[in-house]
Amino acid sequence: MARLTLAEQLAASLVEQIGNGTYRVGERLPSLRECMRLFGHSKNTVINAYEALAAQGLVEARHGQGFFVKQGAPSSNEAEEPLPYERAMDTIWLMRQQFVREPGHSPLGEGFPPVEWLKDMRLDKFTRQIMRTGVTTLFRYGNRLGNASLRQHLVQKLASYAITASPRQIVTTHGANHALDLIIRRFIAPGDSVLVEDPGYYPLFGKLQLQGARMLAVPRLADGPDLEVLEQHLRVHKPKLFFIQSVGHNPTGSDISPGKAHRLVQLAEEHNFILVDDDALADFKPASAIKVSALDQLQRSLYVGSFSKSVSAALRVGFIAGSKEVIDELGDLKMLLHTSTSELCERTVDVILTEGHFLRHVLRLQERLKAATTAGLQMLDEIGAEVFARPEQSLYLWVRFPRVDDARELTRQLLPKGFMIAPGHIFSPEQARVNPWTRLNVAYLNDALLKAVLSE
Amino acid sequence: MARLTLAEQLAASLVEQIGNGTYRVGERLPSLRECMRLFGHSKNTVINAYEALAAQGLVEARHGQGFFVKQGAPSSNEAEEPLPYERAMDTIWLMRQQFVREPGHSPLGEGFPPVEWLKDMRLDKFTRQIMRTGVTTLFRYGNRLGNASLRQHLVQKLASYAITASPRQIVTTHGANHALDLIIRRFIAPGDSVLVEDPGYYPLFGKLQLQGARMLAVPRLADGPDLEVLEQHLRVHKPKLFFIQSVGHNPTGSDISPGKAHRLVQLAEEHNFILVDDDALADFKPASAIKVSALDQLQRSLYVGSFSKSVSAALRVGFIAGSKEVIDELGDLKMLLHTSTSELCERTVDVILTEGHFLRHVLRLQERLKAATTAGLQMLDEIGAEVFARPEQSLYLWVRFPRVDDARELTRQLLPKGFMIAPGHIFSPEQARVNPWTRLNVAYLNDALLKAVLSE
Repeated sequence: MARLTLAEQLAASLVEQIGNGTYRVGERLPSLRECMRLFGHSKNTVINAYEALAAQGLVEARHGQGFFVKQGAPSSNEAEEPLPYERAMDTIWLMRQQFVREPGHSPLGEGFPPVEWLKDMRLDKFTRQIMRTGVTTLFRYGNRLGNASLRQHLVQKLASYAITASPRQIVTTHGANHALDLIIRRFIAPGDSVLVEDPGYYPLFGKLQLQGARMLAVPRLADGPDLEVLEQHLRVHKPKLFFIQSVGHNPTGSDISPGKAHRLVQLAEEHNFILVDDDALADFKPASAIKVSALDQLQRSLYVGSFSKSVSAALRVGFIAGSKEVIDELGDLKMLLHTSTSELCERTVDVILTEGHFLRHVLRLQERLKAATTAGLQMLDEIGAEVFARPEQSLYLWVRFPRVDDARELTRQLLPKGFMIAPGHIFSPEQARVNPWTRLNVAYLNDALLKAVLSE
Repeated sequence: MARLTLAEQLAASLVEQIGNGTYRVGERLPSLRECMRLFGHSKNTVINAYEALAAQGLVEARHGQGFFVKQGAPSSNEAEEPLPYERAMDTIWLMRQQFVREPGHSPLGEGFPPVEWLKDMRLDKFTRQIMRTGVTTLFRYGNRLGNASLRQHLVQKLASYAITASPRQIVTTHGANHALDLIIRRFIAPGDSVLVEDPGYYPLFGKLQLQGARMLAVPRLADGPDLEVLEQHLRVHKPKLFFIQSVGHNPTGSDISPGKAHRLVQLAEEHNFILVDDDALADFKPASAIKVSALDQLQRSLYVGSFSKSVSAALRVGFIAGSKEVIDELGDLKMLLHTSTSELCERTVDVILTEGHFLRHVLRLQERLKAATTAGLQMLDEIGAEVFARPEQSLYLWVRFPRVDDARELTRQLLPKGFMIAPGHIFSPEQARVNPWTRLNVAYLNDALLKAVLSE
């Protein structure tokens, strides 16, 4: 296949990064020195690449300051086509937003921590260690349940949450969403009733709709699900599953109280339903945070974990823990549908857990999150916004702004001003309803322009 | 973190294999010498492992003969239950076999080329190049449709098959099975009719069963699908899709003839169904091999590709090419269900296509395959076996042995002798039928012991 020179490769990579918003209009590109150090390129390679970009009109040299992204730089050589606003206000719209960084937009509605918070996890540092544990197995399907050494590490991770499990009680997945998909396809037939939190994790709703499930909404309060409504549902329906997030609930950022967690496990026993505890943000919270899956010890709960938000979403590594029987079935289903997960990615995570100072990384992540949460709450208080739950640290805050009755309106007003927020109706299983709330990512709240715009 | 000793690992693996019926009561476990050769363990490691199993009462040493599975070992005391491998003669059984390399067993029934054929693709060689094209994007979801540079390379790969496509006509997947799953979930509702080849790709049947599809079997002949039966189905039913393999058909190894390919595309137009051309073995065949998707130019066909068999199954990288509209929908579905594919793995494949001497690798792969096919056909002729199709090169041959009416019998007879074959009924959508054929992997046919055993 055609080969690009190093300079052409670097130029193409920068074009892509300008297109996807990594470098925005007016921003300075990395200096010659940074490029040389980061990528190991020669000075000539970098200069040739930058001059090619300048020739294309994408960047401009400013004397003594470096190269800057020029006004009018095209966004991506194949940008997502703009979607009509109204149609776009649905699950797929918000999911698409996670993929496209719009130049000049603050990703307040995004579900991820900033890349700067993760960068110490240099994925390239671990290649030698990955290869050391066997090159030949990197050509085959791995274990049906997932890399055995990684599952051993996950046993220890679960133990740190006071959940006891063996490696046979864990199946790895391509991230938490793949985990939810496998669980839905194992347990839900069209027409089956399923309990979900309202507001709740919106990509879950789309999957349930696709499977033809009937969603029963249980309001999420600041201390967990509304048990009165839950018990009403249980008296009328026979739901098979309840998808909840004990800790760092998406979108409200709230944590379940011990009393509610206890009662929930009791109800699951009495009414014979499975609690699916989606804990994708576990690494952002203290290990001691209470989880229904820890109370229940995976008897009738399934624990869903992920490394997408604390290590990298580019690896696609998540997992399900549960009883040995259910995990065995889910392992067969994963095999039948998608053959296996990536041995390369799972070994990367395994090495990071062994040698990557992972605990130190997680602690630093939590410190940053705590500072951002404190600052974000202060700003929101100053502009008179209502905050649904006030956790000590949470990637998300659930916020209602003064004089806002429908957050879709606010979303429309903020977008041209450079701020992308996640309007609340998306997080409800009944998306048509008018909803005054918005989900904000605390990492992007410390922004004077945002404060000024919101105070208008 | 806790690590098992090599002896403990070996013992655990053997316990699992006794449990799943790989070794039955009274059967001899691999000898010390075999264990040492197969796993590269020291004599002491193997002895320690066997003694641990003996101490648990699972195996017994018989003087001068080796270690044998003892009466009362986990799998054997369920005498009324069907034997594990009796019960297991279904899709999941054969899929599980792809995951477990049984000591002392020749994997004749396996679907993969030997690791030795792939080893020149050292996955660790490419880390620096992967990082050079942008470290920060390795923390996020990539493009919704998959890595842009890889899709550009795939455009070129398709062009080498005379298929014209743009990058927006390609969506990447976690391998070919994930691709098939997305297509099924986009197009098939419970009760819908779907055409499949008989024999055909068995993991497809399991997915269709799970979705509640009604499978219409079209016999696969040596030059492609049986068009008479196809036309009968088309007169009675309104199938939405026809899953075929133009080239290197699994399990028969046959290729479609130009005339049949042409007629098939005509029928798809007349009867308004989509041809799904699963081309997972493309790299094992000349690029000039005829494909329905090349005749039809992705008008009403979907092309499914994979790097699992020619680069590595541990990466989980495959793709679908089709019309821009269908790919856009499949891209949304992939996002909704599984968020995204692995940017790390896709960039690894991208770098391999750019800098990994991929074409040279593929040519070498094809030369090896041609030699193995020639030798395999000669051996099969010598023992008087009937061969369904005689391609110049094919990873699979579809073979009927003299005096064999039900290949399940042969499978049972060969397993204790150290040969795992894939019995033909598995590859039929109506698995209950007695079937005399077997799928053999040509890479493992050059084996004097096998020839002797088959000549008995």
